[in-house]
Amino acid sequence: MRAAFFEGNRTIALGPCVPVPPGPGQVQIAVDYCGICGTDLHLFHGAMAHRLRLPHVMGHEMAGAIAAVGPEVEGYGRGDRVTVRPLDPCGACPACRAGHRHICQNLKFIGIDSPGALQGFWTVPAHTLHRLPETLDNRHGALVEPIAVACHDVRMGEVKEGDYTVVIGGGPIGVLIALVAQARGARVILSEVNPFRIRLARELGIDALSPAETDVVSHVNHRTGGAGADVVFEVSGSAPGVEMMTKLPRTRGRIVAVAIFADPPKVDLFRFFWRELKLVGARVYEPEDFEAAIALAASHSLPLERLITTVVPLDRLEDGLHQMEGGGEVMKVLVSCSE
Amino acid sequence: MRAAFFEGNRTIALGPCVPVPPGPGQVQIAVDYCGICGTDLHLFHGAMAHRLRLPHVMGHEMAGAIAAVGPEVEGYGRGDRVTVRPLDPCGACPACRAGHRHICQNLKFIGIDSPGALQGFWTVPAHTLHRLPETLDNRHGALVEPIAVACHDVRMGEVKEGDYTVVIGGGPIGVLIALVAQARGARVILSEVNPFRIRLARELGIDALSPAETDVVSHVNHRTGGAGADVVFEVSGSAPGVEMMTKLPRTRGRIVAVAIFADPPKVDLFRFFWRELKLVGARVYEPEDFEAAIALAASHSLPLERLITTVVPLDRLEDGLHQMEGGGEVMKVLVSCSE
Repeated sequence: MRAAFFEGNRTIALGPCVPVPPGPGQVQIAVDYCGICGTDLHLFHGAMAHRLRLPHVMGHEMAGAIAAVGPEVEGYGRGDRVTVRPLDPCGACPACRAGHRHICQNLKFIGIDSPGALQGFWTVPAHTLHRLPETLDNRHGALVEPIAVACHDVRMGEVKEGDYTVVIGGGPIGVLIALVAQARGARVILSEVNPFRIRLARELGIDALSPAETDVVSHVNHRTGGAGADVVFEVSGSAPGVEMMTKLPRTRGRIVAVAIFADPPKVDLFRFFWRELKLVGARVYEPEDFEAAIALAASHSLPLERLITTVVPLDRLEDGLHQMEGGGEVMKVLVSCSE
Repeated sequence: MRAAFFEGNRTIALGPCVPVPPGPGQVQIAVDYCGICGTDLHLFHGAMAHRLRLPHVMGHEMAGAIAAVGPEVEGYGRGDRVTVRPLDPCGACPACRAGHRHICQNLKFIGIDSPGALQGFWTVPAHTLHRLPETLDNRHGALVEPIAVACHDVRMGEVKEGDYTVVIGGGPIGVLIALVAQARGARVILSEVNPFRIRLARELGIDALSPAETDVVSHVNHRTGGAGADVVFEVSGSAPGVEMMTKLPRTRGRIVAVAIFADPPKVDLFRFFWRELKLVGARVYEPEDFEAAIALAASHSLPLERLITTVVPLDRLEDGLHQMEGGGEVMKVLVSCSE
């Protein structure tokens, strides 16, 4: 078994995986598939370098089977197929004590602050595990983590059946938010500039528009009898996206801030006042979002296979990262880790 | 009876009040007191000029007694003491149909889009009336409107007993928000730069701090065991206020946007993501906020008399406006309209 080591300076080196025997409360998983997240690409580009111990194994969107179970672990056994909710909260800070463990003030993200899943064997705390049902294979199981992000975002946006919903930004998370919102009965518009992503979103049954071709605000106002959208998701992380997000909602409409903004953008607070808008930030997921994502994925109501652009072996991880860098005709890249 | 006419170009002219006989659904009120709002000062400075028909009678924070009742008005009679909720919604737009009549998409604000209360007799729709109880005199009755703003803001912020609350900006609305939040059982800090306002707020029993002297964020973190504030009200309309508002809240804490920002300020959306913060805009009030404000004012639990800096006669309205322009040792200026 092998592991992919990020050595800094945009370099990945393949080496032998040295399995870590599971300690108390831990399990060792034989990783089958691991998706490459935008965050992994950021790490590859040098972001969050102070959090990494090089060489670093990245990856946190995975599915596999338990290979070994450490002491004091109950309810899991060898061979159980699982995915991992890669969060390790401290349990003691004010956020944890308030029940917000997923946004713990000292949160360790497994795959950044500790080794990730792009290796043959991965040892993690058992409290991170979610069981995969028989109807969900490991390829699609590796998509549960990003689907859980979307489930969390949709839940934070309080999306209800019939809600007119606009998703700004059609990368993997934006498309998954659109699909999950549709699965919840919402009417969804996706605003995206990349022609490949527009085409793919349409093939997936999403009403995707380019803001370069359509005045999205006028379109939404027209479709809603002049009211505006019930919910808007800002997933683009762009200044035009932030400008659009406040123009779209109806009175007392909701905006979910999903994208990560390194620098504070200008936000039209007047519009918040004028229409009594609500903005809510959404970060990662809680256990119930993983359970919702697994149920959705296992129901085969989402076109998951169409989201997988390619599957590469572990020794071609760097190619996969370069493919994503292009930002062109790519949605989700999976890495096969079991070979 | 007289009226104060704003003639544009920072000029007020006193003239005779020509009482308007109340039409169907209207009442004519003999105005006793009318407060000067920051909005009136903005009008005086030339803001919203396109909405005014000059000469214009300003004013909308008032108390008085009904002088005449038009046809089709039920439940009110001559001599009834009332205040006015100065909103005239269209009743037909999507916001009105959604029950958000106070932020109607075609809202007429009485005192801006139609004549206001700075005159002896004022004719308004009866649906705007709220009855003043015997225990609340007209001086304090004229403060019900700004108290209703504060009640609305506190309600939109979902302030609960024990909530650690920070109010940024200690003008009349900021001070009233602090007082109403305290009346709801919240622990309140007020951040304000003006020494007069800090002193006055402290005299009113509010824990007021100057951000020039105290690091408010560290102070709040220290007081909350590292958690942060439950609720933050941004009432300053300043860039430093907007910067502070995202640093203060605990995970899943709430921010209420009260101030009016002519230009979009930079807002730290990363912090919304990181701590899953919620921002909600709050504008004017709903009927229940007026009822809550009247109940609070009539209970004599708020130090209302201390908020009134001075009472001027109608022919000294311009002096009152100039006093507010100074921005120094002034909180609320009342105008006596009955002489």
